[in-house]
Amino acid sequence: MTNRNSLCVRVDYTNMLAESVGEHGITEAELSSMMPRMRWAVDSLRAKRDSIRWRDLPYNQAEIVADIKRTAEDIRSRCDDFVVLGIGGSALGPIAVHQALCHLRHNDLPRDKRNGPRLFVEDNVDPERMAALLDVIDLDNAVFNVITKSGSTSETMSQLLTVTRILTDRYGEDELKNRLIATTDREKGNLIGIAKRLGLKTFYVPEGVGGRFSELCPVGLLAAAVCGIDIEALLEGAAYMDALCDNEDPNANPALMLAGLEVIAMNKGANVGVLMPYADSLKYFADWYAQLWAESLGKRRGNERFGQTPVKALGVTDQHSQVQLYTDGPFDKTITFLAVEKYRTEFTIPHAFDDVPNVAFLSGHTFNELITAERSATEHAVTVSGHMNKTVILPEVSAFTIGQLIMLFELQTAYAGELLGINAYDQPGVEEGKNATYALLGKKGYEAKLHELRSAAGKRRFVI
Amino acid sequence: MTNRNSLCVRVDYTNMLAESVGEHGITEAELSSMMPRMRWAVDSLRAKRDSIRWRDLPYNQAEIVADIKRTAEDIRSRCDDFVVLGIGGSALGPIAVHQALCHLRHNDLPRDKRNGPRLFVEDNVDPERMAALLDVIDLDNAVFNVITKSGSTSETMSQLLTVTRILTDRYGEDELKNRLIATTDREKGNLIGIAKRLGLKTFYVPEGVGGRFSELCPVGLLAAAVCGIDIEALLEGAAYMDALCDNEDPNANPALMLAGLEVIAMNKGANVGVLMPYADSLKYFADWYAQLWAESLGKRRGNERFGQTPVKALGVTDQHSQVQLYTDGPFDKTITFLAVEKYRTEFTIPHAFDDVPNVAFLSGHTFNELITAERSATEHAVTVSGHMNKTVILPEVSAFTIGQLIMLFELQTAYAGELLGINAYDQPGVEEGKNATYALLGKKGYEAKLHELRSAAGKRRFVI
Repeated sequence: MTNRNSLCVRVDYTNMLAESVGEHGITEAELSSMMPRMRWAVDSLRAKRDSIRWRDLPYNQAEIVADIKRTAEDIRSRCDDFVVLGIGGSALGPIAVHQALCHLRHNDLPRDKRNGPRLFVEDNVDPERMAALLDVIDLDNAVFNVITKSGSTSETMSQLLTVTRILTDRYGEDELKNRLIATTDREKGNLIGIAKRLGLKTFYVPEGVGGRFSELCPVGLLAAAVCGIDIEALLEGAAYMDALCDNEDPNANPALMLAGLEVIAMNKGANVGVLMPYADSLKYFADWYAQLWAESLGKRRGNERFGQTPVKALGVTDQHSQVQLYTDGPFDKTITFLAVEKYRTEFTIPHAFDDVPNVAFLSGHTFNELITAERSATEHAVTVSGHMNKTVILPEVSAFTIGQLIMLFELQTAYAGELLGINAYDQPGVEEGKNATYALLGKKGYEAKLHELRSAAGKRRFVI
Repeated sequence: MTNRNSLCVRVDYTNMLAESVGEHGITEAELSSMMPRMRWAVDSLRAKRDSIRWRDLPYNQAEIVADIKRTAEDIRSRCDDFVVLGIGGSALGPIAVHQALCHLRHNDLPRDKRNGPRLFVEDNVDPERMAALLDVIDLDNAVFNVITKSGSTSETMSQLLTVTRILTDRYGEDELKNRLIATTDREKGNLIGIAKRLGLKTFYVPEGVGGRFSELCPVGLLAAAVCGIDIEALLEGAAYMDALCDNEDPNANPALMLAGLEVIAMNKGANVGVLMPYADSLKYFADWYAQLWAESLGKRRGNERFGQTPVKALGVTDQHSQVQLYTDGPFDKTITFLAVEKYRTEFTIPHAFDDVPNVAFLSGHTFNELITAERSATEHAVTVSGHMNKTVILPEVSAFTIGQLIMLFELQTAYAGELLGINAYDQPGVEEGKNATYALLGKKGYEAKLHELRSAAGKRRFVI
């Protein structure tokens, strides 16, 4: 193992503080008064054994990892297209990790230059998208991985019905076991029964691992291994960060400090939280984080409402879209930059128009210097304008640092749940919409809901 | 022309009103008291001739459109990869329109099934992304379109330097004119001089058309035409909506009503605005809109701060990520759904597991019914939970409706600027970051700024 300490993800929270950004920042008194509760939160979280089994994933999966690696090798040897059927927590993690750790245009590379099959993660039920997928994949050489813990996710099960029908018609039911893998609950739900009957290779989502905390179990690890990602290094990174973030001293526990600062900021009116990675490889991390943060903390307790709205931005791209708002707009947000110290490529801006001074000054610099300068400049601009911001620093983008980042944000979210005194692991607010969908599709038992919907539809409408 | 009235984009704002969502909605009194200012805004906007030349684009480009179509035909006949070098307004429009009106996996299709060259829009300076692009494009058969009005956008000019050097080394300077097209200001800036010297085919960004309002000028039209999109229908749609939205009666002017409702909501504390299309084809419209809305309205006037933070969501995907927050979270946001009445594909969910009732109820329905039911169900859920929402309804996704949608949102933004009394067409807040970048890269004239940055860097930092 190389020197892993030099690859530790760090957090710079200087610009969250009033000392740096002025009156709209967090004062020493505010941070001090949160400290006792932050220390308490470490123990409080440890006691939630049943909800935080995802903390065990870096330590308890040796056999599962071996099975995943064997399965992935088999798939890599005979498959050109690997298709994940899943939505929410079953999709956002696989997408984020693939983007972070594969070639940025992995799917566009020819087979001989690509490290593994193309990856498609199908997380919508738009009919045009389903049709488009079938237009481009090579069905003869495709393997599908259907992922749903409950086996009752309508979107995923609709996709499964479609794929099962197509594969059965084309290759016969006996062939399904070579082309379809199920990831679901070990005992409960519709999918495990179907999988057993069809003899499918099956992986399990462990108990106590909710969808948005499931990237480091087979939900995420299989797709990662299929794409040639070092899943053991991912888990090592997660273990490293988990240990660091078990410290009761907030000054030595980055997840706890991030949670404490963000909760103080929320209490001060920052109901918007921007995550702005300065790397295309980390672009979809912001999507994964948006689910984790929104679905865990967007909660009500009686009449009290909680939740900060996560916003995804990409540096430097969104400087040309959002930074005008971030500097001149209201003091209603925090900005979290993701910085990369060492990109995997160095690329020099060549000389071409040396007689045009406004352009020529760029030549000889690297794109690395340019993107880094722009990140520093944007940090400077929002700090000068008085807006709270912080930077999570990745020494490099690798399986080890990505594993750290996943665990860091999961623990930040879990600690924020403790500090706010809410349950970060349920999602009662999605039931109404689910039930209404069932009713509209005529599922048995939802007749009363359908009646309610039809009554509501009768109200006066305002349309232009 | 088919019956275009049946293809008119409509706005249903029922659920913005207290009558529908309860105490956190807009009352009749609030809407009535905004009406006089809304009527005034129509005249006020008409008077801003110099800032709203983008309103003329549907009417004054006959010759330009002919030139674009000729150029696009030439490119389509000899080119496999069309690469846009641009950022912000030069990228977000082309990306959105391409996603809306081409095959959803256009770039993944083989050449003979693809309507035009692959499109790459390069809107970042990540060194890994620049390298990845060069790994996948076929340089021999590629044409580049560099887009920057000012010719001083560091990101775009760095890309131009790179591409110019590579093309010159490989094919000689004389060949540049066959492989590089410039879109820039007619007279000012660095790019027009370079383009003239190299003899490049050049298109112009008209005066009074700011970056975020430029999709319907050559900035967006060339890439669209190259991908086989009917740009005349786009402009017809925009003209149709422009005429509709010149009406002084808010009840007959959808852009004005949208602006009025959103400004009232902002005044009531909705500092977050979610745009949630229920179609993969409209996914990147949310990115385009996010720039338009954030950069136009994120402004300060003395100590007053304006601006609502736009949030991008995708239906149904983000139901599994954000809807928990939208239903149980605070009353700090509006949600704008984009609904599609008729998708371009119909896709039936087949029978496969008829003995599993929790799955079998889906079979026989179409994906179209499923996504539509989920949109209705989500609208119902956020309405029941008391959150303001509205729906922009597209009868179909076509060049004509997309042209309407572009103009609708541009005019909504412009009217909101009038109602708030701010300048929606400048972006003074990005200067600080631009200047800091110049300083960090050692550009002449920015020595004082560099000194300031170095002083700031010396402060005490808090890092874990």
